[in-house]
Amino acid sequence: MDDGYFMSLALELARKGEGAVNPNPMVGAVIVKDGEVIGKGYHERFGGKHAEVNAIEDAKSKGHSIEGATLYVTLEPCSHWGKQPPCVDRIIQEGFSRVVVAMKDPNPLVNGRGIEKLEAAGIEVKVGVLEGEARKLNEVFVKYITTGLPFVSIKLALTLDGFIATSGFSSKWITGEKARRKVQELRRKHMAVMIGASTVLKDDPRLTCRIKGCTEKVKVILDRHGLTADGNFRVFNDGKVIVFTDSEREWAKAEVIRETDPGRILEILGEKGIDSVLIEGGRSACQFLPFADRLYLFYGPKLFGRGISPFECLDVETVDDAFRLEFLGVERLDDGIYVEARPCSRG
Amino acid sequence: MDDGYFMSLALELARKGEGAVNPNPMVGAVIVKDGEVIGKGYHERFGGKHAEVNAIEDAKSKGHSIEGATLYVTLEPCSHWGKQPPCVDRIIQEGFSRVVVAMKDPNPLVNGRGIEKLEAAGIEVKVGVLEGEARKLNEVFVKYITTGLPFVSIKLALTLDGFIATSGFSSKWITGEKARRKVQELRRKHMAVMIGASTVLKDDPRLTCRIKGCTEKVKVILDRHGLTADGNFRVFNDGKVIVFTDSEREWAKAEVIRETDPGRILEILGEKGIDSVLIEGGRSACQFLPFADRLYLFYGPKLFGRGISPFECLDVETVDDAFRLEFLGVERLDDGIYVEARPCSRG
Repeated sequence: MDDGYFMSLALELARKGEGAVNPNPMVGAVIVKDGEVIGKGYHERFGGKHAEVNAIEDAKSKGHSIEGATLYVTLEPCSHWGKQPPCVDRIIQEGFSRVVVAMKDPNPLVNGRGIEKLEAAGIEVKVGVLEGEARKLNEVFVKYITTGLPFVSIKLALTLDGFIATSGFSSKWITGEKARRKVQELRRKHMAVMIGASTVLKDDPRLTCRIKGCTEKVKVILDRHGLTADGNFRVFNDGKVIVFTDSEREWAKAEVIRETDPGRILEILGEKGIDSVLIEGGRSACQFLPFADRLYLFYGPKLFGRGISPFECLDVETVDDAFRLEFLGVERLDDGIYVEARPCSRG
Repeated sequence: MDDGYFMSLALELARKGEGAVNPNPMVGAVIVKDGEVIGKGYHERFGGKHAEVNAIEDAKSKGHSIEGATLYVTLEPCSHWGKQPPCVDRIIQEGFSRVVVAMKDPNPLVNGRGIEKLEAAGIEVKVGVLEGEARKLNEVFVKYITTGLPFVSIKLALTLDGFIATSGFSSKWITGEKARRKVQELRRKHMAVMIGASTVLKDDPRLTCRIKGCTEKVKVILDRHGLTADGNFRVFNDGKVIVFTDSEREWAKAEVIRETDPGRILEILGEKGIDSVLIEGGRSACQFLPFADRLYLFYGPKLFGRGISPFECLDVETVDDAFRLEFLGVERLDDGIYVEARPCSRG
């Protein structure tokens, strides 16, 4: 009986819900009896059935009895009524003898109570199997449920000498197949995509996620001076758009919020149920750097010499004052380099 | 009989001469008889015996007869008198029946004539085994012997947003053990190390190579205005120093050359027998970018926001005008990223 193996299956299942379940967590479940997997399920979409229930129904549809089986689930089963009935009641009712959980639910509404309830019903519970992987998988959910603020990612395309555009604002050079795909995967991971007005004016992007099964993104435009109010831009074509502005202008196809403080913007997005935002390029990213959970940097094999630097708003006098990052991953991608990093806490 | 295997042994041997044989090539030789290695040798230091002779002497010292053996050598044996007698004569005289060569000597003085002479003596010759690796190993030699110009490398330490120093000129952040070691290996590879006067004034580096067996580097200072003429800097403490300047000042402990054009500087270094120069940091590197064969970039996990950019002398208006590079290697090193790149030919 290898708990790690079955939990890794459950984690694989969980990941299939990426981008479709927000602001819920991704959850996967595997039911094992006599060393054999008899049921599998995952949380497929926001508002849909929970992973545990899907796995139970999968097992039963194949004619298996669950009595005495072990449930592997990547997140502590819920004990409260949300959009779905509490899973712990169902687990107890089905007669599981053992439940293996990767991580406790960080949601204050659950917070170990699901586990207590299972144990009180005489079920053996083991917690913490592949916990690190489970926490990483649900880093967006963990951040949001514990702080009420969205998980903030910054995506930039830079030259090797650190410029996001030439002095003449010429940019756009993510051209490789793999890098394009990576950008799509990043969009899938986040509920919202944020850009500045200047990017709207210059590139007129659609900000869609074109991966199969990817849900439509909330599009957030930072437009202090109302430059996009009149324009016929593609970003307004469909789906939800929120504009943050200081101007008194009106937008025909967007929700308008008169706020431009980055901290407040994030609070407002969190209040609206948005658990994650991907800030795509432009100098506007810099003001969100103090709030960033992740940086995704695409380096192209180019030098500009001079140009637009992404983080000009930083005020660093000496090396010791530098904004410090930690690398999570570095890989070659097409003809460039892809770097995943996160800010270090700075005391 | 695996020619590739024995040649890879010879290439390993050759590499041991790195930094000690310049401006000669690194060469390794392996003698094989009845499928067994009976002699090994490499070119150990500038002016010393050639690899073939060292291998022959190694075999004989162990009591082996060379008659009928095969010689694996990473570079075509020389046919002319240099500091040593021609190897081809010795190879013929020793009675080898077969010679396997990784690459022809790009030296116009040899240029296939060694191979012709061996064949004329009835020896079977095979050329081109692991040629790619051999050419890469001796890229410095190939460049120098074919152009008369040194192999030019630029080494820089940058933040992730591309700055080599803060606006206040605060820099110096290669601190990890592995990165320090890598810098020493880069110095070993090159005959000369070049820095600008401002680096001398600010950091007072010694520019020594502290790896065991590393030869002393020629130290080249770019000092247009003669700022280092009076100072008591460590770089002048020992070894050969060449100062390129426009000023009329004099230096007590350096050869002074009144020239500051980068192309001319490289020609002069080549004329002086310097086959390779490592340009270490500072903005002076930019003017040598058009001549660069290699860039070695150490990225630290930091952001400065603003600061000193390394290639400000470039004049890039649009993405299409960018100075293009090709990555040869990307790896994580300590808490940073190490990138090896080379300029793409730009049509």
